[in-house]
Amino acid sequence: MKVSVVKDILEANDRIAQENRAIFDEKGLMVFNLMSSPGAGKTTLLEKTIGALHDSLKIGVIEGDIQSSHDAERIADKGIPVVQINTGGACHLDGNMIRDTFKEFDLDALDLLVVENVGNLVCPAEFKVGEDFKAMILSVTEGDDKPAKYPLMFRESRILLINKIDLIPYLDISMNRIKEEALKINPHLIIFEISCKTGEGLDQWYAWLKETVERRNAA
Amino acid sequence: MKVSVVKDILEANDRIAQENRAIFDEKGLMVFNLMSSPGAGKTTLLEKTIGALHDSLKIGVIEGDIQSSHDAERIADKGIPVVQINTGGACHLDGNMIRDTFKEFDLDALDLLVVENVGNLVCPAEFKVGEDFKAMILSVTEGDDKPAKYPLMFRESRILLINKIDLIPYLDISMNRIKEEALKINPHLIIFEISCKTGEGLDQWYAWLKETVERRNAA
Repeated sequence: MKVSVVKDILEANDRIAQENRAIFDEKGLMVFNLMSSPGAGKTTLLEKTIGALHDSLKIGVIEGDIQSSHDAERIADKGIPVVQINTGGACHLDGNMIRDTFKEFDLDALDLLVVENVGNLVCPAEFKVGEDFKAMILSVTEGDDKPAKYPLMFRESRILLINKIDLIPYLDISMNRIKEEALKINPHLIIFEISCKTGEGLDQWYAWLKETVERRNAA
Repeated sequence: MKVSVVKDILEANDRIAQENRAIFDEKGLMVFNLMSSPGAGKTTLLEKTIGALHDSLKIGVIEGDIQSSHDAERIADKGIPVVQINTGGACHLDGNMIRDTFKEFDLDALDLLVVENVGNLVCPAEFKVGEDFKAMILSVTEGDDKPAKYPLMFRESRILLINKIDLIPYLDISMNRIKEEALKINPHLIIFEISCKTGEGLDQWYAWLKETVERRNAA
């Protein structure tokens, strides 16, 4: 019985996500859903990405947090439109929460909408919001055994950003193991090794994102 | 409607957790529920704690993971009884899952049962399993803004272990801010600052745990 309730919720969510997706298509707007454990660096990556790309792309952000608006304020400081969703306990964003934000944005004026999900390596992977693709961040400080333990997130993501690589000298982890295990679960993953602190690897991510948005929105 | 479903699930779980608790009381067994984000160091802390205390306490462990039995194998290598629960997608352990493990243990022979929850800073805090108390680990690499963003976990926990303090020199975080924000949410938190890598701070944790188990089980 519990399983069927969960299935109903997921099916209802999939339908709303498809409706969101139709609206994004109509507006010629690329959307990605950014997920990670708490503190892996989602907001910092967004701050850097906005700083690098806001001259060439019009970016909007939806911030998901259980409570507080700290992250939305960090993004607003970059001078771009941002809406904070406080889930009030819910451990993930869903299609309905995203739809509720549409009236707060001028979607026609945007090229890229980024959905920063609640920090959680499990539940957000189950709920589509209408995105073009999911991207996840794994911090090297979380260890090299995470792909096998949280496989759905790795399977659902198109992009894996491995962050905080500046800390590798102080950790007992193997970057090769992270990549091998992740690619075993999802051979199509596009992997970027980055440090939001030193900037290493970020130029490749910016270039990929800019090109992908431009190609998608020209189609 | 969705809210009432969640409430029913939580109420049913609370009832099962109370039944588990009555069994633990009857057996004179202390139980704690260990929670954190993925990769904050739960299994490593358990390995160290078992190594330090298994001469004086009989310890058993329940390992919760979505899939894989990697963590249970690490604990089994320490020569103590361990049961792996694979939740198969569920993002937390609940009372029923814990009850299902009882037939795998000789509960009368144990002094302390540790439940290592699924790595997730959100959902596990909502589901009691019959524990005496909840303990959480926060890795300093997750940043100093986590208490305000994930308040329920901090509010529900009696113990906060702040781990990986050996990495503080390489991070832009304030230990004072972590502690202040955590204590603002839960003034009763008992805080240990530890490094499972260097061993710093662990002796205080071992001493507290040993004394608490002995006092509880003598009562």
